[in-house]
Amino acid sequence: MIDVKARKVVALAGGVGGAKLALGLQLALSPGNLTVIVNTGDDFEHFGLAISPDVDTVCYTLAGKVDIEKGWGLQGESWNVLTALKALSAPTWFQLGDRDLATHMERTRLLQAGWSLSQITEHFCRLWGVSSHVLPMSDQPFRTLIRTQAGELLAFQEYFVREHCEPSVAEIIFQHAEGISPAPQVLSSIEAADLVVICPSNPWVSIDPILALTGIVPALKMKPVIAVSPIIQGKTVKGPAAKMAQELGLEASAAAVLGHYTDFVNGFIYDQLDGDIFTSDNYPGIIKKTTNTIMKNDEDKLGLAIETLKLGERLLENTQNND
Amino acid sequence: MIDVKARKVVALAGGVGGAKLALGLQLALSPGNLTVIVNTGDDFEHFGLAISPDVDTVCYTLAGKVDIEKGWGLQGESWNVLTALKALSAPTWFQLGDRDLATHMERTRLLQAGWSLSQITEHFCRLWGVSSHVLPMSDQPFRTLIRTQAGELLAFQEYFVREHCEPSVAEIIFQHAEGISPAPQVLSSIEAADLVVICPSNPWVSIDPILALTGIVPALKMKPVIAVSPIIQGKTVKGPAAKMAQELGLEASAAAVLGHYTDFVNGFIYDQLDGDIFTSDNYPGIIKKTTNTIMKNDEDKLGLAIETLKLGERLLENTQNND
Repeated sequence: MIDVKARKVVALAGGVGGAKLALGLQLALSPGNLTVIVNTGDDFEHFGLAISPDVDTVCYTLAGKVDIEKGWGLQGESWNVLTALKALSAPTWFQLGDRDLATHMERTRLLQAGWSLSQITEHFCRLWGVSSHVLPMSDQPFRTLIRTQAGELLAFQEYFVREHCEPSVAEIIFQHAEGISPAPQVLSSIEAADLVVICPSNPWVSIDPILALTGIVPALKMKPVIAVSPIIQGKTVKGPAAKMAQELGLEASAAAVLGHYTDFVNGFIYDQLDGDIFTSDNYPGIIKKTTNTIMKNDEDKLGLAIETLKLGERLLENTQNND
Repeated sequence: MIDVKARKVVALAGGVGGAKLALGLQLALSPGNLTVIVNTGDDFEHFGLAISPDVDTVCYTLAGKVDIEKGWGLQGESWNVLTALKALSAPTWFQLGDRDLATHMERTRLLQAGWSLSQITEHFCRLWGVSSHVLPMSDQPFRTLIRTQAGELLAFQEYFVREHCEPSVAEIIFQHAEGISPAPQVLSSIEAADLVVICPSNPWVSIDPILALTGIVPALKMKPVIAVSPIIQGKTVKGPAAKMAQELGLEASAAAVLGHYTDFVNGFIYDQLDGDIFTSDNYPGIIKKTTNTIMKNDEDKLGLAIETLKLGERLLENTQNND
């Protein structure tokens, strides 16, 4: 039997939830065998600085530097700049820690010096000793906007952080998304992968931006792909996916998540608390599996990663049997 | 006799030395009677942030927030971001304190929101309780460059901070300076002033940029103007003025400073240590006066300000006698 550690895995991820499973996969696989393709639709400029929230969350998590409590930002962070911004009556809705700020500043400097976001991310990961490959989904600007039911158009972070996801969502808009290419190595890493894992990130605002890029869905169709549901018993551990689904007239359920991915998914993992939601008639070609998907600690992350890789082995066996 | 406190004074200033006399004048005059016009030729972008070193030094000094030891930056500053930048192998030659950084971030944000540098400076001064008016010399970009004798072209802060003024200066270049207008209120504040004081700042790189703006020299010619020498016994308290003068083939002396300003200066203050440098033949139309110009504490600053204002009264009497 093949050692699952030796598998080459590509994970598609957004922020906190995606980063947690990515860390589990990193712990489960041989060093260097994980590539994480990260949503950049949440990227924005704040105080003139280029901020990539999901890329940073994934990198900090894989580097073992993330604030475990919050799931984002840096451990042992200080907030001197934010306190000073407050004193200047500046907007402080986006939590900028002092050390995190250095990341944004150096990213901005390097972008202005002509580096791509991919090159900068690779540079940071090398400095931080991250063994996995982290690829921003694209080096071209891609902006996820939220049109609220009140008619307002918000940048994603404005909706997510400043407005605490309170406005009802009427539409998710990918601005200038047409014809945007994935970053270098994104398609080739999918081609070289044994297995692709869609992390338990928000399907509509964290994963869909990646899927919207030229060539991604066709590349996924060539590979065994497992999606892990971020929705558990109609709710999410973190983030607005369930609330958003309801507002968009979708069902807030693991079944709706699977329904969203049926075009290219071969395996689906959802929480054991949702054990009885599928009948044998539902998506019969897709292997479904329940397990604990709530990742409270590294053991949970590793556990979910191993269950995912095991399902991957079943998919790979099926592929071989079909050959 | 007129109360000198009631005089309206405009001071032209660069960084540390200029800010010190500006504070002395603020202490000597009634609140609101001092306007400081500040060099912006040193302004630059760093990590995507708009930095105005001289404007900040003047504002921090007048607000009583400056680091007294260094003469620039904020008292009780912390350096968490700079430490994190170092860990990212980012350039750290420009000392960015955490609280100082908030100033640059908020300035950058407001500039991008369409505010002018003047409006932002006024906003900060109001927040910081500065009773004087601080006017950046212009809201248009003006860049002082240093061409070194080795042929390199450096932004002023690169020469001044990164290279520690070590390269020999071949030429001072004011980039895109032609036709640049002073900021709103700069000319009208000179017109409304009883007296103009050229602070002991570097004549070539701190004061000349102000003088290069459209309409400044003609406005000065209509007013009693006193210059205070930054050069004492061929040296400066701080900064490269003396070294620069020698490299440019000029004399590094108080007399050379006066020679530089003769077109529009009516009074000149230089240090008592240079007591005997002028004969009655030297610039006979200009009243010269010696005093202590080394400002080690607020008493020195106030003392020099009072001596300057007293000389101003003599100039104003002369003007009245000539009427």
